[in-house]
Amino acid sequence: EIVAAIEQALESDTRLSLPAVEPGALAGRHVVVTSGPTHEAIDPVRYIANRSSGKQGHAIAAAAAIAGARVTLICGPVMLPDPPGCDVIHVESARDMLAAVEQALPADVFVGAAAVADWRVEAATQKIKKEQGAEAPSFALVENPDILASVARAQNRPRLVVGFAAETTNVIAHAREKLARKGCDLIVANDVSEGSGVFGGDENEAHLVSPIGVESWPRLRKEAVAERLVARLAEILNEKEAAE
Amino acid sequence: EIVAAIEQALESDTRLSLPAVEPGALAGRHVVVTSGPTHEAIDPVRYIANRSSGKQGHAIAAAAAIAGARVTLICGPVMLPDPPGCDVIHVESARDMLAAVEQALPADVFVGAAAVADWRVEAATQKIKKEQGAEAPSFALVENPDILASVARAQNRPRLVVGFAAETTNVIAHAREKLARKGCDLIVANDVSEGSGVFGGDENEAHLVSPIGVESWPRLRKEAVAERLVARLAEILNEKEAAE
Repeated sequence: EIVAAIEQALESDTRLSLPAVEPGALAGRHVVVTSGPTHEAIDPVRYIANRSSGKQGHAIAAAAAIAGARVTLICGPVMLPDPPGCDVIHVESARDMLAAVEQALPADVFVGAAAVADWRVEAATQKIKKEQGAEAPSFALVENPDILASVARAQNRPRLVVGFAAETTNVIAHAREKLARKGCDLIVANDVSEGSGVFGGDENEAHLVSPIGVESWPRLRKEAVAERLVARLAEILNEKEAAE
Repeated sequence: EIVAAIEQALESDTRLSLPAVEPGALAGRHVVVTSGPTHEAIDPVRYIANRSSGKQGHAIAAAAAIAGARVTLICGPVMLPDPPGCDVIHVESARDMLAAVEQALPADVFVGAAAVADWRVEAATQKIKKEQGAEAPSFALVENPDILASVARAQNRPRLVVGFAAETTNVIAHAREKLARKGCDLIVANDVSEGSGVFGGDENEAHLVSPIGVESWPRLRKEAVAERLVARLAEILNEKEAAE
């Protein structure tokens, strides 16, 4: 039923026109969104980061609030103001983010837009010193918790679990593989290779990848991608419930 | 003569009163300041960063401009506006910063306040994928160019070369060792251990370490540290020239 509902929802609409977010489309729903990068400490002064600006995730949270949802936005270190109408929880590392997400559930929809670090370093408590004549150190990495997979397998799994895939090669193929592996309902895939200008930029060219197909959207401002996505999530959520 | 001049300058003033920056104290001088962190790419989306906010370096550049110097500020990625009256060059990596510094010389004074990454990763051109079942990758680090040592040994060495030492343990001992190793004239040392609130904070507790002694300043706003330092640099520069 779920697959059929998504199939129907995806095929019923060729998405050539820009849907505005219907106020009330997500009324009574709780939407949890993650946004931004995570910072993983190497030692007290150094850390591993990524180029996620949080613009897409914050825009989704703002659009969901406009659609009437109660929104919990869990965000890593970003330079953006908190979007209006959202409960915002600021975190730094992937582990902090997972804890905040678990705390925020149950929810109807989970949108994992944050660029969560796959790995962290076993952090040193003292600043690592450069020793004269010594070889440069090597950082052995430790896998971080997988927030998306964890939410998709949670006992109180949201009805709709949406992931993001930022790829530099084979965007759709990687997104399909991620969809299956993580056990989520949708992947919003995009090409973040150099020259795409997506990371940190104001526009995004998104592909909505579900178990039954791919819907490719034109290059749009991130706010427009957020509005489309929220309108789509409201539709799919209704279809899923009708099919249950 | 140089040591004697610094000794005299350091001893002649117990620094109990707050010196204001004298407008014109650095008139006709060219001061090159580095500020902020560097970002070292791991792959197109990930990078290694550090918690330097650039507040201290930017304050020094601003104070030097007020003192009448022509100021070239070379700064890594920061969230601060460009200080007024300075030529500002924005860079990302340590290698970019070194190139910009070399371009900016000759100068009378070099102040290396940036938290330059000691190491970088041999960056991948494609996003590193998390492979299922595979072990987490390990990053072998490569030593970055040493900007401070490089300036201190340059053929067109500025008359006054000032470094910073952000330490979490044995602050003064590490600073003394750094002073000798880098071949610079002064090290501004501070404790950035957790709880000090220095990295990213508005205050700094600085120790001015020269070959002949240590001058420890009370906890001050970073702007006040910058003013004191600039006043001190003008004095030392004059003493050095008089001694030559």
